[in-house]
Amino acid sequence: MRLDQLGEWELIERLSAYAPAGQLADDAAILPGAVVVNTDVLVDTVHFSDATMSPQDLGWRAAAANLSDLAAMGCSNVLGLTVGLVAPGETPWSWVEGVYQGLSEALQRYGGVLLGGDCSSGSQRLLAITALGTLGPGAIRRGDGRPGDWLVSTGPHGLSRLGLALLQDQLSGPIPNDLRQRAIAAHQRPIPRLEAIGALEASQPQGTPWRAAGTDSSDGLQRAVLNLATASGCGAQLRRSALPLDPAMAPLPSAEHWCLNGGEDFELVLALKPAWAEKLCQALPGCQVIGELVAQPYPALTWSETGEPLSTTDPGYRHFS
Amino acid sequence: MRLDQLGEWELIERLSAYAPAGQLADDAAILPGAVVVNTDVLVDTVHFSDATMSPQDLGWRAAAANLSDLAAMGCSNVLGLTVGLVAPGETPWSWVEGVYQGLSEALQRYGGVLLGGDCSSGSQRLLAITALGTLGPGAIRRGDGRPGDWLVSTGPHGLSRLGLALLQDQLSGPIPNDLRQRAIAAHQRPIPRLEAIGALEASQPQGTPWRAAGTDSSDGLQRAVLNLATASGCGAQLRRSALPLDPAMAPLPSAEHWCLNGGEDFELVLALKPAWAEKLCQALPGCQVIGELVAQPYPALTWSETGEPLSTTDPGYRHFS
Repeated sequence: MRLDQLGEWELIERLSAYAPAGQLADDAAILPGAVVVNTDVLVDTVHFSDATMSPQDLGWRAAAANLSDLAAMGCSNVLGLTVGLVAPGETPWSWVEGVYQGLSEALQRYGGVLLGGDCSSGSQRLLAITALGTLGPGAIRRGDGRPGDWLVSTGPHGLSRLGLALLQDQLSGPIPNDLRQRAIAAHQRPIPRLEAIGALEASQPQGTPWRAAGTDSSDGLQRAVLNLATASGCGAQLRRSALPLDPAMAPLPSAEHWCLNGGEDFELVLALKPAWAEKLCQALPGCQVIGELVAQPYPALTWSETGEPLSTTDPGYRHFS
Repeated sequence: MRLDQLGEWELIERLSAYAPAGQLADDAAILPGAVVVNTDVLVDTVHFSDATMSPQDLGWRAAAANLSDLAAMGCSNVLGLTVGLVAPGETPWSWVEGVYQGLSEALQRYGGVLLGGDCSSGSQRLLAITALGTLGPGAIRRGDGRPGDWLVSTGPHGLSRLGLALLQDQLSGPIPNDLRQRAIAAHQRPIPRLEAIGALEASQPQGTPWRAAGTDSSDGLQRAVLNLATASGCGAQLRRSALPLDPAMAPLPSAEHWCLNGGEDFELVLALKPAWAEKLCQALPGCQVIGELVAQPYPALTWSETGEPLSTTDPGYRHFS
C-alpha cells in the first residue's frame, strides 16, 4: 500500500498506534509543566509557492500556523519555535533571510523566540517548525465536547481560500478591492488566535468549571467541526444560515464551499456551554455561534435547518493525494 | 550568495542573528521548567540511504541522534519526540511502518513517547524530529569550560564511519568480524549517552559546584572539541597518544582521521575539573581523558605532545556542500 493510496487521515490513524492512546488526538501535545508542543511541516509546492507568497510571508505563515495549534490547545503564552530548514544548495541566502525575517516578525508580534533548529540541503525547500507555549488556566481538548454545547467560530472562514484564488488568478468577475486585500492578507499573513484564549478565559461564567472543547480550522471548518464532534462522541448540527462568512464574500458562487472546506483560516472552533458561548461572542469581535453538538453521532454533520447531512466530499486537505 | 557557497557553519552563524544572543550556541535549548528541546532533520541521500540502513535502523538512528543532543545538554530523562515525516506519495506504507518501529524501539529503550507530529508528501523522504527531555541537577553548556579542565570522551570514535565504509564496500583488506559487527552497529544503531549523565552526576566530587561543559560528537570529535573550546574562549590540546579509538580499529590506515572527523559517533565530549574527570572515567566504562583546555585560544586545537596545530581540514559535516 502506497501513502497516496492511504491518504493523510488514514496515515495519521496508523501512526497513532505508535503513540499512547489519544496522544495524537489533539492539535498539540501537553508536557509536564503545562508546556505545549506542536510540529508542522510546510513543503514547497504542497503548502507554499513563490507565485503566491514572498519568503517573508512564508516565514510569518509557518510561524502563525504553528502558533494557531498552540492557541487551539489553550495557550496564550508562546515560548518560541525551533526551525528545521531544508533547501537545495543553490537556494539564495536572500530567500532564507526573508523566511527568518517573517518568522521573527511573528515572534515579535506574539511572543517567544527562535529557540533552535537544524538545516540541511535537500531537493525541495521545506520548513519543519516546532512551536512551544504554556497553557493558561485550562487545556482545550477536542474530545471535551458534550451534547448541547454550542459551536463557536472565532472568525470568518473562506477568506484564505479566496485569497489563494486571487493570487492564482483563478477568479473571473470583479471583487471589491477591500475584500481582495482582506482575502490576500488572510492567505499570506494569517493571524493565530492567541488573544481569543484571553477572551475565552475572561468570559468563563462564574461557577462554571473549565470545560472547553476545540480545535483550529487549519484543515477547513467542516473538518474542524467533524474532528471536534467525533472526538467528543457527538454529532454536530451546523446552521446553514449562520455560516461564518465575511459579508462581502457571501455573494460569491464558491462562498459556502470555501467557508466549509477552503482551509487555512486558522480560526478556533470551540464547543462550549451555551452561557459561555454567548459571553465569548459578546467579548470577541467576529466570534459567532455556528451550531451545536448533538448526542446522535451519525450522520456526523447535519444542517440544523433541514436535518440533512452535509456533503461528504472530503473536508480538509489530503497532502498525499 | 547561494547556501552551498555559504556552507553550513556560516549559515548557522547568520541564522543565530534571529535568536537571542547565545541561544543557538548549545546542542539544544532550555525552556522554563528545565524542559530541553532539540530539532534535527534527516534527509534521504544526505543523512541516510536505503543502501546502508533499514527503515527500522533509520527510525532508531533519528531518535538516537536527537536524544544524544538532549544528553549533551545534561538530560537523563526523555519526555518524547515529535516527528515531521515527508515522503513522496509512492512511498510504501511498509517503509513508514519500519521507521516508526525503529523510533518506538528507541523510545522504549530510553523513555519518552511519540508526542505528536505532522506528515506531508514531498519529493524526498525526510524526518524532522524534535526531542524533549528534562534536565537533571545541572545543565551542560558548551561555553562553561575553563583553562585546565580535562577533556573527556565517553567512548570510542570512528566506529560509525568505519561501519559506513563497510556498508558501502569501500574497504579493502580483511576486518576482524567482531570489529565489523561493532562498526556496523555503531552506524546503524548508535547509542545516545543518556546514562553518562547519571554517571556524571554520581561522580561530581563533594563540595565541587556544578560546572560541566560539553557537547556531543555527532559532527565529529574534532568539531566537538573545537566547538567546546571556542565557546569557552579557550584552546584545546589533544593527546595524540590517547585518541579514543576502538583498539581493534587502531591498525587501520584511516583510524586517526575517522576518529577525529568521521562523525556520528554520538558520544559526549566534556570539559571537567581534573578530579571530576578522573572520577567519571573510573565510573563509566569506555570513558577516557583525551586532552585539556588551555588559556591560549589560538591555534584552537593543538597536539599535546608536539604543540603542533591539528590539520585544518574542515572538521565535521557541511550538509550544503
